Amino acid sequence: LAVVFGTAVAFAPVPRITWEHEEVQLVQFHKPGIYNYSALLLSEDQDTLYVGAREAVFALNALDISEKQHEAYWKVSEDKKAKCAEKGKSKQTECLNYIRVLQPLSATSLYVCGTNAFQPACDHLSLTTFQFLGRSEDGKGRCPFDPAHSYTSVMVDGELYSGTSYNFLGSEPIISRNSSHSPLRTEYAIPWLNEPSFVFADVIRKSPEGAEAEDDRVYFFFTEVSVEYEFIFKLLIPRIARVCKGDQGGLRTLQKKWTSFLKARLTCSRPDSGLVFNVLRDVFVLRGPGLREPVFYALFTPQLNNVGLSAVCAYNLSTAEEVFSRGKYMQSATVEQSHTKWVRYNGPVPTPRPGACIDAEARAANYTSSLNLPDKTLQFVKDHPLMDDSVTPIDNRPRLIKKDVNYTQIVVDRTRALDGTLYDVMFMSTERGALHKAVSLESEVHIIEETQLFQDLQPIQTLLLSSKKGRRFVYAGSNSGVVQAPLAFCGKHSSCEDCLLARDPYCAWSLPEAACVALHQTEGPGRGLIQDMSGDMSACPDKGKESFRQHFFKHGGTAELRCSHKSNLARVVWKFQNGVLKAESPKYGLVGRRHLLIFNLSEGDSGVYQCLLEERVRNKTVSQVVAKHVLEVKLLPRPPAAPTSP
Amino acid sequence: LAVVFGTAVAFAPVPRITWEHEEVQLVQFHKPGIYNYSALLLSEDQDTLYVGAREAVFALNALDISEKQHEAYWKVSEDKKAKCAEKGKSKQTECLNYIRVLQPLSATSLYVCGTNAFQPACDHLSLTTFQFLGRSEDGKGRCPFDPAHSYTSVMVDGELYSGTSYNFLGSEPIISRNSSHSPLRTEYAIPWLNEPSFVFADVIRKSPEGAEAEDDRVYFFFTEVSVEYEFIFKLLIPRIARVCKGDQGGLRTLQKKWTSFLKARLTCSRPDSGLVFNVLRDVFVLRGPGLREPVFYALFTPQLNNVGLSAVCAYNLSTAEEVFSRGKYMQSATVEQSHTKWVRYNGPVPTPRPGACIDAEARAANYTSSLNLPDKTLQFVKDHPLMDDSVTPIDNRPRLIKKDVNYTQIVVDRTRALDGTLYDVMFMSTERGALHKAVSLESEVHIIEETQLFQDLQPIQTLLLSSKKGRRFVYAGSNSGVVQAPLAFCGKHSSCEDCLLARDPYCAWSLPEAACVALHQTEGPGRGLIQDMSGDMSACPDKGKESFRQHFFKHGGTAELRCSHKSNLARVVWKFQNGVLKAESPKYGLVGRRHLLIFNLSEGDSGVYQCLLEERVRNKTVSQVVAKHVLEVKLLPRPPAAPTSP
Repeated sequence: LAVVFGTAVAFAPVPRITWEHEEVQLVQFHKPGIYNYSALLLSEDQDTLYVGAREAVFALNALDISEKQHEAYWKVSEDKKAKCAEKGKSKQTECLNYIRVLQPLSATSLYVCGTNAFQPACDHLSLTTFQFLGRSEDGKGRCPFDPAHSYTSVMVDGELYSGTSYNFLGSEPIISRNSSHSPLRTEYAIPWLNEPSFVFADVIRKSPEGAEAEDDRVYFFFTEVSVEYEFIFKLLIPRIARVCKGDQGGLRTLQKKWTSFLKARLTCSRPDSGLVFNVLRDVFVLRGPGLREPVFYALFTPQLNNVGLSAVCAYNLSTAEEVFSRGKYMQSATVEQSHTKWVRYNGPVPTPRPGACIDAEARAANYTSSLNLPDKTLQFVKDHPLMDDSVTPIDNRPRLIKKDVNYTQIVVDRTRALDGTLYDVMFMSTERGALHKAVSLESEVHIIEETQLFQDLQPIQTLLLSSKKGRRFVYAGSNSGVVQAPLAFCGKHSSCEDCLLARDPYCAWSLPEAACVALHQTEGPGRGLIQDMSGDMSACPDKGKESFRQHFFKHGGTAELRCSHKSNLARVVWKFQNGVLKAESPKYGLVGRRHLLIFNLSEGDSGVYQCLLEERVRNKTVSQVVAKHVLEVKLLPRPPAAPTSP
Repeated sequence: LAVVFGTAVAFAPVPRITWEHEEVQLVQFHKPGIYNYSALLLSEDQDTLYVGAREAVFALNALDISEKQHEAYWKVSEDKKAKCAEKGKSKQTECLNYIRVLQPLSATSLYVCGTNAFQPACDHLSLTTFQFLGRSEDGKGRCPFDPAHSYTSVMVDGELYSGTSYNFLGSEPIISRNSSHSPLRTEYAIPWLNEPSFVFADVIRKSPEGAEAEDDRVYFFFTEVSVEYEFIFKLLIPRIARVCKGDQGGLRTLQKKWTSFLKARLTCSRPDSGLVFNVLRDVFVLRGPGLREPVFYALFTPQLNNVGLSAVCAYNLSTAEEVFSRGKYMQSATVEQSHTKWVRYNGPVPTPRPGACIDAEARAANYTSSLNLPDKTLQFVKDHPLMDDSVTPIDNRPRLIKKDVNYTQIVVDRTRALDGTLYDVMFMSTERGALHKAVSLESEVHIIEETQLFQDLQPIQTLLLSSKKGRRFVYAGSNSGVVQAPLAFCGKHSSCEDCLLARDPYCAWSLPEAACVALHQTEGPGRGLIQDMSGDMSACPDKGKESFRQHFFKHGGTAELRCSHKSNLARVVWKFQNGVLKAESPKYGLVGRRHLLIFNLSEGDSGVYQCLLEERVRNKTVSQVVAKHVLEVKLLPRPPAAPTSP
């Protein structure tokens, strides 16, 4: 009586365990009447989680987000709403103030921008009073007009770098620095930005603060319409773009424009399988003491034939920097008077190298600022913002490919297993309110578990990871609220076998406690701890006292023997007196694909029944007995009316 | 207690009924030791099905293919096998003779070609003696060297038109006419054929035999590497190509080459959903008295991100002819010395129109044969074989899109329903030995049924439709054998409701016979027949004598009430005394997702239980009672040892 579910199909790794919403008691925050909890910001020092929603900002206790510390509202005036509605927008949904920028400005204030009924505005939020200061700065170029439009921003040394659209229609894309002394922006030209969807931005520090040896860079990630490929219809291409923090723009050419804007293609594909992931969904920058350089984890879905497919690719920072600092440029050529084709530029490249940050070498050649750069260099970068080389992922292939899901967000935690091995644990949210936790092992992707964070099946809009000791959580925001989830549910594995088969680097079996415990909650190198990422359960203590349940049944009746387990990868095998019970038959049935029914009981059915779970782990099958029942069928004097069963 | 299975998901129409291999007693043919039954040919007159397999040809009774009439073997000599193996090919698999061409030559002979251990050869098979005549013609260009390479051919008036590869490596593609007096072939040049995979070829007659007003055309269908698009890697493009039967080649330019070879892109996509079906799998030409012109039914899968996706597009012949006879041409332009870009050619086009068949107008201008055509016209068609316009499908979108399947072959039958409406019934074979039968209704695709034709899950390599009265079958060939399946399993629907809900245009409920019958087996306009393709069951006679089953059970026992049905689209709802039983609970369970278990019976459980099937048909829900049980629980004196249930 064997039922296989969760068979291994190409690109269809199945989460080993599914935690339903009711099974995990997650801490939640939701303020009635407030929706679209799309901006999350963690204050590392104060243990405070700031949440930007529609027309509201909240300060929550990061250790227990159900505990609200402060709230501030920023509503649109009726007058503005009316004007917005006049332009054909919905008063109930679009003509409201969606918080899109929530950035730390100083120790005592946040910088907040909202769509403000299609009149984007920014303000300062005082952390002492938790009130808006009412500055009402123009948010154009920092925050989109339309809540449906894409946006990204990062605050760097008090200056906001942002990518969004610059006008009401959303047709003019812009990457800009909002700075009082040196505001900069992109050229409004197809080769610079071609219908982009902004996804992510962050700063990469090159040198300690104050030092000037190498300039910090701000990286932007977006998907845009390709100019270099020609497809049956508009082909989207994921991009990584880079600007230098020290950029001051040009003096004549590229005045108040970036002189350091370069972009390149991000590749994430499996040409052998025809898999092309060309829509970027989210990016996470993994940094850490164990890492020589930051790694960009990028989440993709395909544009083409996507009936549920997602992938994760990881990129080394140095791969991207190599492309920008030494790669070839592309240039456009005109064909037959009317067509344009982008090809590799093989001609001479001016000095200093177009798009480069002002480094020691440039300074030595007396180019101390971008304002000094020669026109030739500036004109070149203006016409050639696109690199010919592309930024390829680590190992030249995706870390994870998953069928039947559209992931929306990703965060990655680098954690050390009991044996010292480092694992990059990927947390991906889905369009249906769930969170997948996965590790990429040598030959396979192991999705440790799936957790239904939200009861409603809405997309998770934002994920935030907190991996500080004693505060290891994933925070997730959706339209309906914010949820705080632990990184692992170790305590839910009740046996040593369960704990080890989970192959969760966060969890180990504690012999003294006889419990599955979270590794980071134990002190020092664990004594009496067992963990085995290969799924070897041999270190588990023998079940000395094999427990079993005894049942008495009447002749002619039906027995139900239960076999509870959580693994979606396991095959249930029922044994009777050590012989495997085969296939569904008039004698046996399965309920819920695991519990055994025995019909029309007779004396011959008395004996020992065992439920075995068989699971494939790294190409070998491991099995464990999860339930043992002893059945005794008693012959009773036949009742006058004989029972009939169909 | 309601279980939904087969919910409506985008592009995931579920076959309403699944017939397992054991449920349908199909007539089969298989000769032990013979494999790869890849060529099927039906003789309409003799009711004979010819089957080409590896090293063998069979003649079977088309009405009962298990009845073998003749067999002929064509084995590779040991000498040839050894030579083939020397070239690095497998002696056991590749160095054999795979029959790839099986075409009617005359009333008394077939034309047969085989790979012949990488030395393709052709021979004549006498139908009187059923023996090969031993001609041993060179099969180069008619049949591939490698059994893994693609091929297609059609016999037109005694001359074989074929598309395949011309050399051992399979690197030189060719579309040719093998004719003693006028052999013709394609140029060996990328613009003509670029790594094609040949799929199908057929002749379209323009005028009655003998008449010369308009020339017959031979159409070729294949997938090749695109020259007009530039993608991240080699992009495949499905093509339709055309040559004229009267083509004689050029006199100097294009000597012994086609002067009428033109090709165009076939489009089958849904740009709004990013769906691009660019790998052609099979083509079927639907002709018929009810049709003004032939319709090409083409089966596609995507090259990109195909984790199981197929589509069917239908094209009018006139759409293709319009492109070839009046469309713009493409031409290549050189960019920056090294790149090529194909763009629309807008310059002057020579007269007569390049690639056109010799028609009345050409003859009037004294161009009586392609040998007379001016050099300008020939040079133009040599350089411009690709049209700029593409051949678009009927309604500009796919007829069917199906997730989680890779279809391999298609045949289409145009059949008249009881109310006179014509339906194009599509039969598609899968990679796993099954056949899907579907009709495209106004707003939805209805997959009437799925039949497991072969026990093993191997791809079906070839499908052949016979829709002659009294011989309506689909023949399917796979590696292991040939199967003969009826077009419908009407008789398997046991009730009027079942028969109507099947929405099978072949089936109707016969009131006099009280049975579901095949329409085409009844004579004339049926009296007492009911059919309703909208799923309306109101015409079914009232179930006057509602049958039910009575059961007696003991107090404390478990009852199982059965509810059998075949519909994958139905939702099972159990009612007790007219109230719906809700959700799984300690009291109730479901076996096999349909049969009801009632645990721990007490007097209160006595009463009437009904199993209802709810099914969505065209956006409304229809329901029917499929089982009715009357349960009586009797209180018995308690036995000494009380039964305990976990």
